[in-house]
Amino acid sequence: GTKSSIGGFGGQVDLAAAGYEQSPTISSGVDGVGTKSRLAIRMNKHDTIGIDLVAMVANDILTEGAEPLWLMDTMNMHQLDVETGVNIVAGVANGCIQANCNLAGGETAELGDIIKEGHYILDASCSGALRKGRKPLPWKEDMAKGDVLLGLPSSGPHSNGYSLIHKIVERSHLAFSSPAPWDPSTSLGLSLLTPTKIYVRALLPLFEKDLVKGAAHITGGGLVENLPRILPRGLQAWVEATSWDVPAVFRWLKREGNVEKEEMARVFNMGIGMVLVVAEGLVTEVMEMLEGMGEEVVRIGGLVGREEGGVGCVVRDLEVWDQ
Amino acid sequence: GTKSSIGGFGGQVDLAAAGYEQSPTISSGVDGVGTKSRLAIRMNKHDTIGIDLVAMVANDILTEGAEPLWLMDTMNMHQLDVETGVNIVAGVANGCIQANCNLAGGETAELGDIIKEGHYILDASCSGALRKGRKPLPWKEDMAKGDVLLGLPSSGPHSNGYSLIHKIVERSHLAFSSPAPWDPSTSLGLSLLTPTKIYVRALLPLFEKDLVKGAAHITGGGLVENLPRILPRGLQAWVEATSWDVPAVFRWLKREGNVEKEEMARVFNMGIGMVLVVAEGLVTEVMEMLEGMGEEVVRIGGLVGREEGGVGCVVRDLEVWDQ
Repeated sequence: GTKSSIGGFGGQVDLAAAGYEQSPTISSGVDGVGTKSRLAIRMNKHDTIGIDLVAMVANDILTEGAEPLWLMDTMNMHQLDVETGVNIVAGVANGCIQANCNLAGGETAELGDIIKEGHYILDASCSGALRKGRKPLPWKEDMAKGDVLLGLPSSGPHSNGYSLIHKIVERSHLAFSSPAPWDPSTSLGLSLLTPTKIYVRALLPLFEKDLVKGAAHITGGGLVENLPRILPRGLQAWVEATSWDVPAVFRWLKREGNVEKEEMARVFNMGIGMVLVVAEGLVTEVMEMLEGMGEEVVRIGGLVGREEGGVGCVVRDLEVWDQ
Repeated sequence: GTKSSIGGFGGQVDLAAAGYEQSPTISSGVDGVGTKSRLAIRMNKHDTIGIDLVAMVANDILTEGAEPLWLMDTMNMHQLDVETGVNIVAGVANGCIQANCNLAGGETAELGDIIKEGHYILDASCSGALRKGRKPLPWKEDMAKGDVLLGLPSSGPHSNGYSLIHKIVERSHLAFSSPAPWDPSTSLGLSLLTPTKIYVRALLPLFEKDLVKGAAHITGGGLVENLPRILPRGLQAWVEATSWDVPAVFRWLKREGNVEKEEMARVFNMGIGMVLVVAEGLVTEVMEMLEGMGEEVVRIGGLVGREEGGVGCVVRDLEVWDQ
């Protein structure tokens, strides 16, 4: 993270003052929260959607081994609404604290002729630094058969699959204000608004010690589409669906929406928000470090050989999600 | 500018390879094209709106003295449309070439439930570098009475004032496909789509030689709101409206819309897209350098003392816009 002065027409970050004495490589990414904002509007609760926004971009550049340093957001609204705007930005600021990242600027626009009544659209870009001489993740050439896949739990659907979630809830007999079937202590809508987990503070110490060969942020596309992106052509991710407890929210969505298990695997993270590729000999150290920071971690599979034309990720025993 | 590899989940820029051997300060900004996109849609011409997008953010960080290095865009559409998307991105790429800046990433989202049919929203963030030891612009403490204001022409309304422009054209008897009253060689709509001028290549050589104390990008708010932002409390910008020829498009908008001259000054750039604060003794060198690069430049006024509570910018002889 960094301290920086904000002023003039933009935000300024002095990289030397941020701890990068030598000129670093900068990793950048941009993303939005998609239709999760519709749920925030439905529930009239806008103070956590900004956490989702930060998470989507900060977790992404984290997978390149970069330390997130600054973030900028755009808020396009049908109509400027101060209270909603303040709540959204409070969430963004909260997310930036979690990601140890500077909120360097933002843009708010009122686009009443373009955005439907009552709606808004959130996007953010985030940049982070890789210390000079550090190789960006993933280290594909260092990966080998027998490497272990460690999964870090998600906090729910994160910010993906909400178009399907909206459809499932609308077709169900439940209102968003109904008690959540999987957690009667809260409402369906509030539970589905649970903000995306930010993995920055958990992973940076592991990266510093070169304990991780690759990290995959499990977003749209699920394990089956996100894990192959960090693997070399000759290796396949072999994931055992029985190795972690699928959160009840996913079981409910699957049952209520009558969704095929293969589609669940492609749309949702199914309870695993980040996956690390770690050499077998370092697994104990990584797990102990994560647990020492209060993070849960579970061994979900490993790397095996991939034949020419083979898929990059196989999730076994999906039937367990039906139970 | 910089060359960089794009891959994985985001864009990477090696600052040392980009010519910053010592760790620089990074300036960042974010902005959108507002409702100019509605005009692109009306004219079904999408290959220049991306230039406007780059211009809005690159010109902004340029005013801090930073060299734009990379840019990321977001394109939120009612419905994904490949041809439109390709044209938009071609414009963004063209703008990045003009700004000598790397297109480091982008995000496209289909938000049919949020964005009205046929519409899209464009935003971009841009980051640039200030060489170690360089003081960011504006150098307020170096400004003094007698400093000169040099104006660089705009190419038209740039990307500001389009909500008013839409209203004026809708109330007029003209269609967007009519010949432009101020330029019968093109249509009203196409002329109003003229892309925003990008000042990067013109100004960086001046900054390198420490010839400029401040630069103001004239966007929404016009000269009267943008110039004061770069001035110290004790100085006032004194601008002579007679010193440059107001482009005919602004005269037509004023007459057709029956817009007060004071409102014109607050909404539009009125023909001046960038203003430089230059010491009197350096004016000749600056003007010769700009003219040597093929840039037009005009002396539009200077800095005078400002009393406690006085305004930051006075534009004299606005009556000339009525003629």
